[in-house]
Amino acid sequence: MAKKAMVYIQSGGPTSVINSSLYGAIKEAREHGDVIDGIYGSLYGIEGLLCDQLIDLNQEDEATIELLKQTPGSILGTSRHKLPKDIHSDEYSKIIATLKKHNIGYVFVNGGNDSMDTCAKLSSLCKELNLDVKVMGVPKTVDNDLAETDHSNGFGSAAKYIINTVKEIVIDAKCYKKSKVFIIEIMGRNAGWLTASVDLLPEGVRPDFIYLPENPFDPEDFLAKIKKQHEEHGSAIVAVSEGIDFSEGATNVRVDSFGHKQLGGLSARLAQLVETRLDLPTRSIELSLPQRAYSFLTSKVDQEETIMCGRLAVRHAVEGMSGHMIAIKRLSSEPYAVDFTPVDITKIANVERKIPQSMMVDETRMADSFREYCLPLIQGEIPVEYENGIIKSAVLKKVLVK
Amino acid sequence: MAKKAMVYIQSGGPTSVINSSLYGAIKEAREHGDVIDGIYGSLYGIEGLLCDQLIDLNQEDEATIELLKQTPGSILGTSRHKLPKDIHSDEYSKIIATLKKHNIGYVFVNGGNDSMDTCAKLSSLCKELNLDVKVMGVPKTVDNDLAETDHSNGFGSAAKYIINTVKEIVIDAKCYKKSKVFIIEIMGRNAGWLTASVDLLPEGVRPDFIYLPENPFDPEDFLAKIKKQHEEHGSAIVAVSEGIDFSEGATNVRVDSFGHKQLGGLSARLAQLVETRLDLPTRSIELSLPQRAYSFLTSKVDQEETIMCGRLAVRHAVEGMSGHMIAIKRLSSEPYAVDFTPVDITKIANVERKIPQSMMVDETRMADSFREYCLPLIQGEIPVEYENGIIKSAVLKKVLVK
Repeated sequence: MAKKAMVYIQSGGPTSVINSSLYGAIKEAREHGDVIDGIYGSLYGIEGLLCDQLIDLNQEDEATIELLKQTPGSILGTSRHKLPKDIHSDEYSKIIATLKKHNIGYVFVNGGNDSMDTCAKLSSLCKELNLDVKVMGVPKTVDNDLAETDHSNGFGSAAKYIINTVKEIVIDAKCYKKSKVFIIEIMGRNAGWLTASVDLLPEGVRPDFIYLPENPFDPEDFLAKIKKQHEEHGSAIVAVSEGIDFSEGATNVRVDSFGHKQLGGLSARLAQLVETRLDLPTRSIELSLPQRAYSFLTSKVDQEETIMCGRLAVRHAVEGMSGHMIAIKRLSSEPYAVDFTPVDITKIANVERKIPQSMMVDETRMADSFREYCLPLIQGEIPVEYENGIIKSAVLKKVLVK
Repeated sequence: MAKKAMVYIQSGGPTSVINSSLYGAIKEAREHGDVIDGIYGSLYGIEGLLCDQLIDLNQEDEATIELLKQTPGSILGTSRHKLPKDIHSDEYSKIIATLKKHNIGYVFVNGGNDSMDTCAKLSSLCKELNLDVKVMGVPKTVDNDLAETDHSNGFGSAAKYIINTVKEIVIDAKCYKKSKVFIIEIMGRNAGWLTASVDLLPEGVRPDFIYLPENPFDPEDFLAKIKKQHEEHGSAIVAVSEGIDFSEGATNVRVDSFGHKQLGGLSARLAQLVETRLDLPTRSIELSLPQRAYSFLTSKVDQEETIMCGRLAVRHAVEGMSGHMIAIKRLSSEPYAVDFTPVDITKIANVERKIPQSMMVDETRMADSFREYCLPLIQGEIPVEYENGIIKSAVLKKVLVK
C-alpha cells in the first residue's frame, strides 16, 4: 500500500479537551508508520486546506505534544467557514488541489454538528471524484447536542467546570443574610445539557431554578418564582441556558455564517426584568468562554474518551473507512462503561440532540435519570503542570509543509 | 488569669482564603486553652454580635475544620453593615451586652478597609468603657488596597485565578484568524492591582492593553488603540478594571451602606462603544464572583500567609494587644521572604492603597518592578479534595451559643 499523509482539522468553537483528540490522533498515526507518512495540521480549520496552509506536526517536540492535553483553545486555529452546497464550486477545487499536492490520503475533521456538515461534504466529494482519500469525523462540542452518540467529547469537562463554578457562586451568594437575585447564564444554544448539569449539585449549593431551551420560557412565571424564593430565603439563584426564548431588550444580534444567532447578554436582560418588575437587587453572571476553555477542571473520563476517539478515527481510516464519526455508546452507568462505534456522518450533520422530557421532573428541575446519565461524565481529576504559578500550555512551532 | 471566650467575625466580600484565616485562628486558639475557653463565630458579620447569634466552633468536626481551607465564601456569613459614628448609640449597647453575656475577651474582625473601620470602632469603644476585651484585625481583600501591609490576604489567590483564566480566554480568542474585540472586566473598585496582575502573562497569551483606575480613561485613545490592534492582528484583547472612570451608558447605579457604587456592566458598555464607533464584533467578559471565590486555584503562598495572619492575631491578643491588624512586611522578593507585624488599626481603616506610578511603564503596561512584586504572590499549588467530581466544601453545624 502506498504511503499517504494525513491532515487534521479543528473546526468550530474549542472545548477544554479539543487538543486531546489531536493528541490521540497523533499518537495513533505514529503507530501506523507503514501507511501514514506525514502528520499535518490544517491552520484555521478548513481555511488551511483552502489556502494550502498545513503544518508538519512531526516537527513538534514530544513535550509539546504531551502538553496538548492541558492546552485550551484550538491549537491549530479554527474557523466557522461554511463550505458551499455546490461541490463544483471553486472552493472544492482549491481543497482538492491541496490534498493532491501533499499526497493526503486521510482527512480528520474535529467538530460539532456544523463541522460534521463540512466533513460530510468533503467525504462525498472525494467519493464522487474517486479520490483515494478517507474522511473521518472526530466528535467535539461542549453543548452535548451531537446526534447518534451517548455524549459529546468536551461536554463532561465543561459540565465539571460549570458545576464547580456555580457551586462557588451559590456559596458566595448565600454569605449575606439578605442577598440578591443571581442570574447565571450558561452555554447551550438549542440544548440545555450544560445548564441541566448544575442540578447534580447537592441541596444547599444548588441553584433554586434552572431554565432550559427545551422548554417554553414564561417571564411571568419566572418572576413569580423568583419573588417567592427571595421573600422566603433572602436570595434567589437561577441557572439559565443562553438559548431560552426570551428576546425582550435584545438588539443588534449578530448572525454567524451558519445562520446561528450570536447569543449573550441574556442574563443582563433577565436581571433588568427582575429589577424593573420586582425592584430586587440583582447580579447577572455569564460564565462565558471559560466554560469551553478551562484546562484545570478537565474530567478524566472525558479526556480519556476523547483521546480514544482521536485514536479510533485514525485506526478506522487506515482500515479503509470513510464518511463516519466515532460515536460513544454507553453500556452501563453504574459501573460506568462505554464502547466506541463509527456512525454514518450524514446521520449527524446539522442534527441537534436535545434533552428528552423524561429527564426532567418539571421545567426547573431534572429527574434522577438525568443525574445517572451525567454524573459519570464529570468523574476523575487530572493533575496539571504549572510554571511560576501559571498553567503551562503547548505552543506549536508551526513549520509549514512545502 | 481568668479564662475568656473569643469571637470571630467575617466582614465584607469573601476571598478564596477567607476561611483559611479562620482556620488559623481556631488552630492557634486551641493552643491557648489556658486563657481561651470558648471559640465562637459571629453569624453574618457584625450582625451576630448585634443579635446575639454566635455559634460554637468547638462543636464542629475536625474534618470540617480542615475543609475550611478549600471552602469559598464566608463560612460564618458576612455583612456590609456599617456601625454608627456615635458610640453611645443603641447598636453599641447591644454589642456590649452580647460580649458580656458570653464572657468574651477577644474579638477578631476579618476584613478589608471598611471592616477595619468596624474593628477600630469596637476597639476604641472597649477601651473607653474600660472593658477587658482585645479587638484585633485580620486582613482580607482581593483588591489588595489595604494600607500598611505589603499585600492583602486573598489577593494572591484572586490574581492567580485571574491570570490563569485570562490566559485561557486569550488563547481561545486567538483561535480564529479574524477574531473579535474582547473586553475582560476585572474586580478592583479604586485600585487596579488585580487587573495589573494579568501583565505577568508571557507575550502571546497576554491581553494587548490593560486599563487601571489609577489612570484617567480616555475613550478616544482607547478606541484608536483597539482599531489599530484589530487591523494589524485580527483581534484586540483588553483587560479593564471595573473601577475606571467611564460612566457613559451607566444607569441605575446602586450604592451600598459604605457609599460605594455597585459597579458592573462596564465591559458591556465598553463593548457597546466599540461596536457603535468602530463597527467591530465584540465580546465582553466580566470575570465576576469567581474571582473572589475560587478554591481550586488558590496560591499556596497566599494560603500559608493567611493562616499565619489568623494565628498571629490570636497570639498577639492573648499577649494583651488590641486595636491592631496583622500586616505583612516583605523582606525580599527573590528569594521571597516576609515577616508579620501588628499595625495600629487607625492607620488602615478607610484608607485605600493604589498602585504607584513607578510600577507602570505607561497607562496600559506594567513595569518590571510590578512583576517582581506580584509574581511571588501567586506561587505554589494546593491539591483539593473532590467527591464525585465536585470539590468538597465545609458545611458547619452552626450550634448556637446559649
